[in-house]
Amino acid sequence: MKEYSEEYLDHIKDIISQNDEATARKELAELHPADIAELYKDLDLDEAEYLYKLLDEETAADVLMELDEDDRLKLIEHMPAAEIAKQIDHLDTDDAVDLIQQLDEDERDEILSHIDDVEQAGDIIDLLKYDEDTAGGLMGTEMIVVNENWSMPECIKQMRLQAEDMDEIYNVYVVGNDDKLKGVLPLKELITHPSVSKIKHVMESDPVSVKADTPIDEVALDFEKYDLVAMPVVDSIGRLLGRITVDDVMDKVREASERDFQLASGISSDVDTDDSVFAQTKARIPWLLIGICSGILASIILGGFENQLHAVTALALFIPIIGGTGGNVGVQASAIVVQSLANGTLELKEFAHQIGKEVLVGLLNATIISLVMFGYNLIFLPGNMAVTLSVAVSLFVVVMFATILGSVVPLTLEKLHINPALATGPFIQISNDIVGLLIYVWVATGFLKIFGG
Amino acid sequence: MKEYSEEYLDHIKDIISQNDEATARKELAELHPADIAELYKDLDLDEAEYLYKLLDEETAADVLMELDEDDRLKLIEHMPAAEIAKQIDHLDTDDAVDLIQQLDEDERDEILSHIDDVEQAGDIIDLLKYDEDTAGGLMGTEMIVVNENWSMPECIKQMRLQAEDMDEIYNVYVVGNDDKLKGVLPLKELITHPSVSKIKHVMESDPVSVKADTPIDEVALDFEKYDLVAMPVVDSIGRLLGRITVDDVMDKVREASERDFQLASGISSDVDTDDSVFAQTKARIPWLLIGICSGILASIILGGFENQLHAVTALALFIPIIGGTGGNVGVQASAIVVQSLANGTLELKEFAHQIGKEVLVGLLNATIISLVMFGYNLIFLPGNMAVTLSVAVSLFVVVMFATILGSVVPLTLEKLHINPALATGPFIQISNDIVGLLIYVWVATGFLKIFGG
Repeated sequence: MKEYSEEYLDHIKDIISQNDEATARKELAELHPADIAELYKDLDLDEAEYLYKLLDEETAADVLMELDEDDRLKLIEHMPAAEIAKQIDHLDTDDAVDLIQQLDEDERDEILSHIDDVEQAGDIIDLLKYDEDTAGGLMGTEMIVVNENWSMPECIKQMRLQAEDMDEIYNVYVVGNDDKLKGVLPLKELITHPSVSKIKHVMESDPVSVKADTPIDEVALDFEKYDLVAMPVVDSIGRLLGRITVDDVMDKVREASERDFQLASGISSDVDTDDSVFAQTKARIPWLLIGICSGILASIILGGFENQLHAVTALALFIPIIGGTGGNVGVQASAIVVQSLANGTLELKEFAHQIGKEVLVGLLNATIISLVMFGYNLIFLPGNMAVTLSVAVSLFVVVMFATILGSVVPLTLEKLHINPALATGPFIQISNDIVGLLIYVWVATGFLKIFGG
Repeated sequence: MKEYSEEYLDHIKDIISQNDEATARKELAELHPADIAELYKDLDLDEAEYLYKLLDEETAADVLMELDEDDRLKLIEHMPAAEIAKQIDHLDTDDAVDLIQQLDEDERDEILSHIDDVEQAGDIIDLLKYDEDTAGGLMGTEMIVVNENWSMPECIKQMRLQAEDMDEIYNVYVVGNDDKLKGVLPLKELITHPSVSKIKHVMESDPVSVKADTPIDEVALDFEKYDLVAMPVVDSIGRLLGRITVDDVMDKVREASERDFQLASGISSDVDTDDSVFAQTKARIPWLLIGICSGILASIILGGFENQLHAVTALALFIPIIGGTGGNVGVQASAIVVQSLANGTLELKEFAHQIGKEVLVGLLNATIISLVMFGYNLIFLPGNMAVTLSVAVSLFVVVMFATILGSVVPLTLEKLHINPALATGPFIQISNDIVGLLIYVWVATGFLKIFGG
């Protein structure tokens, strides 16, 4: 959209170096807070701080929330607690909680003590109690709430008061006298039924809501399923606590899918191309070293088989195909399970059914692959029946084993509440490498005995 | 949320088998269309059709849109064109286009000729012209549009008329007399400024908008960046054409990340655990067969090296570690590039910079890994300097090569407008396997000559 050019960046850097506050303010006024945050990434810290000080409090608060967590921490590091508190005053409670959660306990308390609006400070303290990965951890308390027995004019009057502090309104929540959520008032009713005597006659009753302790994954699936832009959060007896907005859910969906993709690729912490060489190496070396250990293990397994390898060197030629195929099969099987668990297609209660299905898929794949290799070796490795049979039979067993392991491991992890994506990547690849070799060594030893290797 | 139990499913199946229409209608009335669609997945086609006929037209249309594409096609296959047209009357134009796009040309024309609302039919025909993967292909024409020169009471009167046919309103778009988009009117202004004389005084000017030919990926990034729930779509001179809603964008974000994950896992078409054994095998066997071909290629390469393997069998023990490490390194490097391209962190103009950075990461990883393996073999394979050096040097070269290939390939694919995720999976794994072996064979041949193997 508002993609800026190298020239624009140079222009901004010039303005800063010339200390031209007036022009800087004018340029900033034309940018959306999200664009200012993007600009910051390409500036040095002192340049960013210079611009930041020129922003009005509300924009400054918005920019702060648009920054990456690391950049945000850098920017507020030198800010006095009173100033951070002022910015928090301009934030929705859910954003305020995100910001405060990054700080350590002492800093939190100091900042909270500086917030003038006691009600907001109280809300933030309440919200901090919820687990980050639940609906409660994602909700904010800014919302418009009306009573089901009010008339529309009464509602509009109340809404006018409540709307003052709010950036945007997407839904109006309707509660009973007991504070329990009764319905949602679509804004179009304001326009189409301006004089109804009781809100409950035009509200949508029984709205989709979540309990505060619902895991975020489930919340996201509900947003997608019911096409929501906001969802009310209730306590265990149905009293309205807050609301979750779709933008926060979208961020979480992207984060979760990125995390799965990274886990599946053997990257152990959240990095992208912006991170330093050192941070990237640190995120990538652990699985590589685990891979080296498994390679050493493979060499030990093959070492026990060295006499046979020496006698029938042709056996060595098929070492790569055994491990490679096992790895590929396992990654496919686990990726399908991980994805289906993530998008709600597969549920844990279908565990046995899923394994049964995978066994059939495995049988089909194993048969095709073994026959192909058997045919190839029959033609191109004539007279070497021990090797030909060893490779074909090993491939069959390896594909079956890898298919089953590829589905059992992520399902088991899900059952243990561990992210199943952990199973999709190097883990499954490495286990299949090792097991594949063991199977090959064992099968080949058998055939060599039969055919007299 | 409204997760239903096995008992509930049996209960519904009983009602259907007893042909108890009254109870069935009562049960359906309590369900959200998305829940009815979910229920259909667990019913036979004739059971689903039975329930479907009991729905009122509007709910039926909503249910249709909530179904998977396959299930939707099955359900409308036996429906007369006139009936499908009636349902389309109840859909937003963007959903109608999604549905019609699934059908072949003859069916499309017949259905369109049955739509009573000429304006809607015209809008659908216009929308069908846009590429599915652009903003135009995702937009609908249902929106509230007011003129910047109207007063608020005039606006509210107009909005009341326009809102009649709409399910939900999130934004009101403001245009000038030339139909160009001038601003967005947040709904809170309706409440807080009920009597302003000209809308343009309270609208938000210069709203984030997108041209109709913008690719969907960019649209999604803008939604996330600016935290939008809806975005106006304009033509090349800024005239308002339609709007995109966040629910459609979320679906696309999930689809795109699932597609990337599947490509990266060597699954060639979109399947999940619900699909048949045959469909799953079909999606999985292509990359497995490519893997087998590469395994055969590996055996040919090693075949040319058979004399050396026979002379120094210890060389065979390290075949798995070479290919495995190359694969792991390549997958990591490409995953980071693919993900950073997808979330907007990395841009093509940073091609050279990114490769330079990866070379440094590769150097660090390669040094650590080679030293570890060198140390291990020095201790546990004493007196076999040719093998020890061959493994360490090969690993160093393989890691460097795999790191660079892992970043160059996805960046090149992106440049060629091919999905870079294609590079993250078996492709990179297989190329690194083969190249790794070639490097190992070549390096080992050299060291054997030096040390006299």
